[in-house]
Amino acid sequence: MLANPLENITILLVKPQYAGNIGSASRAMKNMGLSKLALVTPAQDPLSPEAKMMATAAKDILRSARIYPTLEEALTGFRWVAGTSARKGRVRGPFISPREICPEIISLARSVPVAILFGREDKGLTNEELAPCQALVSMPTHPGLSSLNLAQAVMIFCYELYMASLDIQRETPSVSRFPRPAEFQKMEGMYAHLEDLLTRIGFLDPKNPKRILHTLRRIFGRANLSDRDVAILRGIFRQLEWYATRRPAEKGTETPGR
Amino acid sequence: MLANPLENITILLVKPQYAGNIGSASRAMKNMGLSKLALVTPAQDPLSPEAKMMATAAKDILRSARIYPTLEEALTGFRWVAGTSARKGRVRGPFISPREICPEIISLARSVPVAILFGREDKGLTNEELAPCQALVSMPTHPGLSSLNLAQAVMIFCYELYMASLDIQRETPSVSRFPRPAEFQKMEGMYAHLEDLLTRIGFLDPKNPKRILHTLRRIFGRANLSDRDVAILRGIFRQLEWYATRRPAEKGTETPGR
Repeated sequence: MLANPLENITILLVKPQYAGNIGSASRAMKNMGLSKLALVTPAQDPLSPEAKMMATAAKDILRSARIYPTLEEALTGFRWVAGTSARKGRVRGPFISPREICPEIISLARSVPVAILFGREDKGLTNEELAPCQALVSMPTHPGLSSLNLAQAVMIFCYELYMASLDIQRETPSVSRFPRPAEFQKMEGMYAHLEDLLTRIGFLDPKNPKRILHTLRRIFGRANLSDRDVAILRGIFRQLEWYATRRPAEKGTETPGR
Repeated sequence: MLANPLENITILLVKPQYAGNIGSASRAMKNMGLSKLALVTPAQDPLSPEAKMMATAAKDILRSARIYPTLEEALTGFRWVAGTSARKGRVRGPFISPREICPEIISLARSVPVAILFGREDKGLTNEELAPCQALVSMPTHPGLSSLNLAQAVMIFCYELYMASLDIQRETPSVSRFPRPAEFQKMEGMYAHLEDLLTRIGFLDPKNPKRILHTLRRIFGRANLSDRDVAILRGIFRQLEWYATRRPAEKGTETPGR
């Protein structure tokens, strides 16, 4: 149990285009008590004069920012990931608001490392980048202009995290309704296993295999699977796989291992 | 009584120093459904290229901004004024948070024009400028860095106003992370189907079959399955069942229905 959940939350900017936004995001983070920044292939140097100018007294966050070549590497070790989006496509959702999810994130971040993903300025996060996320968060904006500046989106999210952390400090700590979530790599391993199984039994539409997989990711993402949950599901997948691939002659003569 | 209280609220920047911040503040306002901007002696041209660049699609707010030589003239005609501050001096207070005051502001703005004052980037509002304010609002920030960028402060305030306006509208459905859950009977039908499948493949421990089923109920229970989710999962179960129960001779000669 950590003393301060805000220190267990990483703001992860995926392919940010402008160094000034990285600096502004650092300042917003520090304003709200967050300090861990990670970047996936930023287009500009996060230590450029522009970034430092916008960061003001948060240059320490810029300097300690971790930079990764891929999102997969950046997510290694995290146990809970939220992705942000301005678009609320029916296919991509369902979405939750920062105000609704932040108390849950603060509760989770007391015991496990959490990452919040923000996409590039012009296009946001792709469906592939949203796939590993346990929760999809849409920023509430007026229909008149739904495109938020990247650093402003980071600010709203960090502000809600900070407010939720203040609320929780006032309350007696309660046990989270969710178990300790499995690591990112374990979740991805399970999804790969599931995809393989569904392909073997011919369940996936060859024309659009991702549609069913997307729905299953949303279902299991919402369920916040623990290590034990993942182990049980993979045990079931293995047993089913045995039935799906056994040769007729083996029927009744062998039993699959658990 | 106005239909939209957000249109009755003016964001009033007192002596802003940087045109870029005026542009960013305009964008933040439009993101949250506000449109009325007023400026008291800005140090830079609010229609400079820098301001327009930061405003993106909110240049209409920049163009219609009213500019005043003094705060007194800017406040003429308003019936309710709030001043913002990062500092919480005993002499200047008592202060309230944006989250606490915004529902009241939305309520007021349905019938009277309201102004929200923001001070210059380096020093904020003076005691004299705060004097005419009915409420003093302090932005919640972490003690590690309490100085907010001007446009970020405007964003937090406008965000809280927008959220309060949504709460008051009530008829606006809130964004929920969870879809409309499937009926109890559908869930039970799915669990019976799953138990049957796992029994057929010999996955359940005959001594304690309920243990695994309990874990699976916890997983799918947390996921709040919709009707569509249940239909997809049962489709997968049916296909797997076909593999688990087919007779050797049938292999390769039939395909299961979806």
